[in-house]
Amino acid sequence: MIQTTEVVDKARAAQQAAALLRQSRTTARDAALRRMAGGLRASRTDVLVANIKDVEASREAGATAALLDRLALNEARVDAMAQALEEVAALPDPLGEGESWVRPNGLHISKIRVPIGVIGIIYEARPNVTVEAASLAFKAGNAVVLRGSSSALETNKVLVALMRQALQESGLPPDAISLVEDTNRDVVDEMVRLNGLLDVVIPRGGDALIQRVVRAATVPVIETGVGNCHVYVDSRADLDKAERIVVNAKTHRPAVCNAAESLLVHGEVAAAFLPRVGRALIEKGVELRGCPRTREWLSDAKPATEDDFGREFLDLIMSVKVVDSLDDAISHVNCYGTHHSDAIVTEDYSAARQFTQAVDSAAVYVNASTRFTDGGEFGFGGEMGISTQKLHARGPMGLRELTTSKYVVTGEGQIR
Amino acid sequence: MIQTTEVVDKARAAQQAAALLRQSRTTARDAALRRMAGGLRASRTDVLVANIKDVEASREAGATAALLDRLALNEARVDAMAQALEEVAALPDPLGEGESWVRPNGLHISKIRVPIGVIGIIYEARPNVTVEAASLAFKAGNAVVLRGSSSALETNKVLVALMRQALQESGLPPDAISLVEDTNRDVVDEMVRLNGLLDVVIPRGGDALIQRVVRAATVPVIETGVGNCHVYVDSRADLDKAERIVVNAKTHRPAVCNAAESLLVHGEVAAAFLPRVGRALIEKGVELRGCPRTREWLSDAKPATEDDFGREFLDLIMSVKVVDSLDDAISHVNCYGTHHSDAIVTEDYSAARQFTQAVDSAAVYVNASTRFTDGGEFGFGGEMGISTQKLHARGPMGLRELTTSKYVVTGEGQIR
Repeated sequence: MIQTTEVVDKARAAQQAAALLRQSRTTARDAALRRMAGGLRASRTDVLVANIKDVEASREAGATAALLDRLALNEARVDAMAQALEEVAALPDPLGEGESWVRPNGLHISKIRVPIGVIGIIYEARPNVTVEAASLAFKAGNAVVLRGSSSALETNKVLVALMRQALQESGLPPDAISLVEDTNRDVVDEMVRLNGLLDVVIPRGGDALIQRVVRAATVPVIETGVGNCHVYVDSRADLDKAERIVVNAKTHRPAVCNAAESLLVHGEVAAAFLPRVGRALIEKGVELRGCPRTREWLSDAKPATEDDFGREFLDLIMSVKVVDSLDDAISHVNCYGTHHSDAIVTEDYSAARQFTQAVDSAAVYVNASTRFTDGGEFGFGGEMGISTQKLHARGPMGLRELTTSKYVVTGEGQIR
Repeated sequence: MIQTTEVVDKARAAQQAAALLRQSRTTARDAALRRMAGGLRASRTDVLVANIKDVEASREAGATAALLDRLALNEARVDAMAQALEEVAALPDPLGEGESWVRPNGLHISKIRVPIGVIGIIYEARPNVTVEAASLAFKAGNAVVLRGSSSALETNKVLVALMRQALQESGLPPDAISLVEDTNRDVVDEMVRLNGLLDVVIPRGGDALIQRVVRAATVPVIETGVGNCHVYVDSRADLDKAERIVVNAKTHRPAVCNAAESLLVHGEVAAAFLPRVGRALIEKGVELRGCPRTREWLSDAKPATEDDFGREFLDLIMSVKVVDSLDDAISHVNCYGTHHSDAIVTEDYSAARQFTQAVDSAAVYVNASTRFTDGGEFGFGGEMGISTQKLHARGPMGLRELTTSKYVVTGEGQIR
């Protein structure tokens, strides 16, 4: 018998709620999402008052400016959450999609998309994740147990209370969305071992959080996150496109997982490309760390260590390496990369084909920025994170990735 | 740095092979599979000689007759393996299947089915699993590292050597299929923690093996197996169909995971159905364990304990319970079952609809035996096991379930 604690109680209640959600209609869930949006707008002041408490407490505890920025809400941010809820309500429902066939013995088999059940989500300071993650999981018919950062607890409590109230008013079980309020860090370890109560755990946040969850979990985990992404500039690259793509992939938003961390340049275009891309990157404040051959053309670059090629900087830093061939570029990406997003810039058909086939990453690009690896950019309408594992979901996880399948087999007395 | 041991060396070699397989053609892999079949037939004697060694050693070590039967090969069994290889070669290749779309900014996005990479398979005494599991994983473009039972080691060595030779002769990397020969049990624990080398581990065997792997693994695992399957006979059941289905589901092959372990009967038909199904089951040698209401109509049934309703007997034993309603039947199945395969027997449209929606199992049946949950019966041409988890694969795992996906995004210089 599992000992009763807050997290166990909430997971059990979520499991009951999931059984009801499994039979709920799209229209009912969408109406609840729209009601949540309305509730959030109507109670904007309550959210902001709670948020001020969280921000003040974090400031007194000496939080960094970056953390305070992630934590702090304002009217526009609350309105954006409400709008996101309405956008999720407007997305097509993935549930019930499927295929069916008839076997020679007359059995009809349907494979139907159904909710996973209960999803545990463990995340960090941004309160908007509370609304975004809960709404996507709920839209796909799942119950969620949320475990956010203690720094955002007061804000999260108000947000979850508003969502639960909307569920209640919509005739759906409020326990479909719950928040673990126990701020003891051991709760995470307890949560990721609730086999039989949680069907999956999704960590959202930095590498330390994700690794902690992966190591401790016995419940299946969808690993998200780390992106050591490459741009490879081939000998047949259009160097204008190459410069535009490298600068965008590195500098557009350097702290996110689909930002490029490493630049590979074919030896034949090193002389023509490295000085110009170097200037452009340095102008944007990027620190370059190059291999010896890179530094022949880019004297401003610091020497790169072996470690630099394996790192996700999440900052305005880029490692640079000159390679002798497409094969070397592919080997480098597969060896040092994290199988997230990698790009080739080339006008050579065969090179493009070989790169996309041989690079073992969730998203492989030809002549486009790695920054497009994103549920919104891919047209999924939202995302729960970007999976870097190969099982279940790979790349941006939209609503479909928050479902599983069920076989429904109907007959007229068939036996074996 | 990972310490170098046999399993690490073989996993590393498999990773190199996987990189080549990723770019191999269907025709090449299918030719290799057919060559394996030819090699197996040509070297049948070598296989049988090795197998006699294994069987003798196991007999001397006091193995049970059941184990010896699983272990022992004969000409017909070797020929069946060769034929299975040819059947796998003839299956359609799942690789490259996909969907594609164009985004408003002109990016073309394709989601393409690709190999997972390196699959670790941990299994027990049956040597035919060596050929079956390796061939399915390889057909889907994966390299495999096999860890069979020490009792089958000599047989497995010959089988794997034959498959590797066929790979070599077909111009494909022999390290695509390798066998861990170290019989130390700790090797399993080492293997399931090779993150970065193995992409997934699939245990095939009894519950003890599977639970051991799930608990020890940090590599993602696809859990297969345990089936506490139910047949629910509704108040509106056709009792002839019901009897036929219950007897088949229980007695056709009682030791497999899709055999029924528990019978639920609606109170309104208990008097009419229990005596006749009881007679039919007892005639087949089934021991019945019933709830008090069952025993009013089936005096031959022993009293069932709470534990009996949660057990996978894998034997000619069946628990029986009388329920008051469809809702009670659904709650019982979701609470005591293992979410594998569960059936309702009914002529009532609404009851069938509610049961299939509310029962949270990989396969839900109306008026058919649970025994159909099988890759072959579903038309997949073969199976790697039956997944009882909800992530990645649920139910029988065919070739598609041995693949992952990759997004290929092509542009003409797009940036964000």
